[in-house]
Amino acid sequence: MGSGRAWSGAAFVPFDRDDPVLVAAAWSRLVEPGDRAAGEVVAALGAAPALELVLGGEHLGEPHLDAAVERWRTRVGELDPARDVELIRTLGGIVLHRGDPRWPASLFDLGGAEPHCLWVRGDPSLLSAARVGGVAVVGARASTSYGEHVAADLVAALAAEGRVVVSGGAFGIDAVAHRVTLAAGGSTVAVMAGGLDRFYPAANGGLLRRVAREGCVVAEVPPGCTPTRFRFLTRNRLIAALAAGCVVVEAAWRSGTLSTANHAAELMRPVGAVPGPVTSAASAGCHRLIREGQAVCVGDADEVRELLGPVAASALVPEPDVGRLGDAPGLSERERRVWDALPTRRAVRLDAVARAAGFTVAETRAALGRLAARQHVVEGREGYRRSGS
Amino acid sequence: MGSGRAWSGAAFVPFDRDDPVLVAAAWSRLVEPGDRAAGEVVAALGAAPALELVLGGEHLGEPHLDAAVERWRTRVGELDPARDVELIRTLGGIVLHRGDPRWPASLFDLGGAEPHCLWVRGDPSLLSAARVGGVAVVGARASTSYGEHVAADLVAALAAEGRVVVSGGAFGIDAVAHRVTLAAGGSTVAVMAGGLDRFYPAANGGLLRRVAREGCVVAEVPPGCTPTRFRFLTRNRLIAALAAGCVVVEAAWRSGTLSTANHAAELMRPVGAVPGPVTSAASAGCHRLIREGQAVCVGDADEVRELLGPVAASALVPEPDVGRLGDAPGLSERERRVWDALPTRRAVRLDAVARAAGFTVAETRAALGRLAARQHVVEGREGYRRSGS
Repeated sequence: MGSGRAWSGAAFVPFDRDDPVLVAAAWSRLVEPGDRAAGEVVAALGAAPALELVLGGEHLGEPHLDAAVERWRTRVGELDPARDVELIRTLGGIVLHRGDPRWPASLFDLGGAEPHCLWVRGDPSLLSAARVGGVAVVGARASTSYGEHVAADLVAALAAEGRVVVSGGAFGIDAVAHRVTLAAGGSTVAVMAGGLDRFYPAANGGLLRRVAREGCVVAEVPPGCTPTRFRFLTRNRLIAALAAGCVVVEAAWRSGTLSTANHAAELMRPVGAVPGPVTSAASAGCHRLIREGQAVCVGDADEVRELLGPVAASALVPEPDVGRLGDAPGLSERERRVWDALPTRRAVRLDAVARAAGFTVAETRAALGRLAARQHVVEGREGYRRSGS
Repeated sequence: MGSGRAWSGAAFVPFDRDDPVLVAAAWSRLVEPGDRAAGEVVAALGAAPALELVLGGEHLGEPHLDAAVERWRTRVGELDPARDVELIRTLGGIVLHRGDPRWPASLFDLGGAEPHCLWVRGDPSLLSAARVGGVAVVGARASTSYGEHVAADLVAALAAEGRVVVSGGAFGIDAVAHRVTLAAGGSTVAVMAGGLDRFYPAANGGLLRRVAREGCVVAEVPPGCTPTRFRFLTRNRLIAALAAGCVVVEAAWRSGTLSTANHAAELMRPVGAVPGPVTSAASAGCHRLIREGQAVCVGDADEVRELLGPVAASALVPEPDVGRLGDAPGLSERERRVWDALPTRRAVRLDAVARAAGFTVAETRAALGRLAARQHVVEGREGYRRSGS
């Protein structure tokens, strides 16, 4: 198709079109998640040449691709990838493009629907770690106390053995998954449907900021993007792809959660569903998945482990005493609070520790020094980290 | 094997060994339920000649069969089938042998484990009717109010459309299945593990007497036999065989109920299991069946219907207004009580109605006459019945 009119170009803030990070950021601004036409053009030409094509006046001659190019061109005026990348850096985050060695290989399974770019706040290594024995735990926003109880039980056991827990940051089961993982000293990844400059839902902001600090928050859309219904559904394919398998704890009969399960099944990831009372509407979607053979009935951590398949303990994210200071004697209250302010698995700079702990830089440096002397903390090139992490 | 010693015979009360009912009754006294050696010998020789072999001194030359014959001979001294048959008749019951036209063809599927005899109190036609769209509803004795609630919902819907509900007369889910079926004006079959001279458990005696009056109670063991653990397990194959399919509502991880489900699966009857909270031990067996692919997850009557497969409504036990008198105007309290005393689907003699209703024969005859004049009751050769039944 493609209209006959010539593309006269649109003004956009110039950027270095040889920088793969900026090219990836530009793609994530121009196209909606999962746009397979973009996947096709980028696969055929490469990200940078394909971007030139969009920014230039060319046609491809393939009607469906030319229609897609015209669709993307409507957003060229919004392009300012350098600003977007700078913004995420201000928030302590980074941008990954497909060529980055930290890019999670699990996303290759998405084929033409693979994201062009990942916007990350937190530890990007968890994105790859999740594929090895990690589990997507998703479920109803309108969860019941039964579902929350079961989710907490499952997640506490799985997170404690070093399995990365992936979820969507929503109310209900998602929030339980993230919160309980953090409480167990484990690693969690929250995949957002909107830009990482704002966390949605706002009421989960505190939890998601903590996930960004101690785990990882990720999105494929750039800052400023609102989480539309479409983006929630496409976001679900990332949750499914990142983890080794997916467990649904409560879902209504028609529920977006089921799309995560469907994506997981398409990606050959095992899917489990937790049954519940047949009198509970919040379990109807789980029973549907089980009835239709799309999910295995799972009720405890052992059954989830069986679902996910064997994985060497050494392959899981290490969980020494990183997550807890325990009863280590002789520590002051200030030292304990500084310890608590350290992320579970990353090094952070002194000023960030001070800000998180709520002490002056001098007080914080002194406390870290005493923690280091007792081998609870290690100081490295990138700042301070818990020893063993 | 068979010991080398000669069989010198044992005294037993003589009976007509040409009467197939007495021969069947004798077999049910001599062998434990499901004894495949007995099935083999009877299939090879016929029930009467095979019985002669046991009562005589012959050997078969097949070591495993000779060992079985010796095992059965230990009970020859207890034989008195005429007395047993008379006793069940005194209780208003009958005895079916395999050649009886009322013998349920569904039991053929048991092959060598087919019973030799059925001791029946109530309407034997329900035994065959159950195979057409009927459902075995079984479950935990230690049921929860959740399980009882779900069982009641399922059974009320299925019984009301004329599906025969088969169960085991136990506490818990079984009792709910029978009770709710009766309350819905439906047809229910209770399969007992012990002799029908006494109902077990005794606390369900009232319910089981009502099942015998309005439905059917059946056992393969003769009067006087105690319900041993072994007989419960072998009884379960009859529950499974009689119905078109089996639904488990609550079962513990190790539960006799699971043996019914296993029998049903072996007999190619579809099996459903009702999920529940994974925190409930009473649902663990159901989840196990679902996980292992032995049962389909079912939660409502529609899903049970789908499980059982299509069946013409006309093939189900008819359920016109047989079960309810409704708001029929102009009836006296006595007429309503006489109506209530009539079984749902059978004709009974006047004196039995009077006894059940608690009126004199004259009062009862008068009430039945008025009910007949209004076409609520029909008088036939076998006594009075509800019209339409």
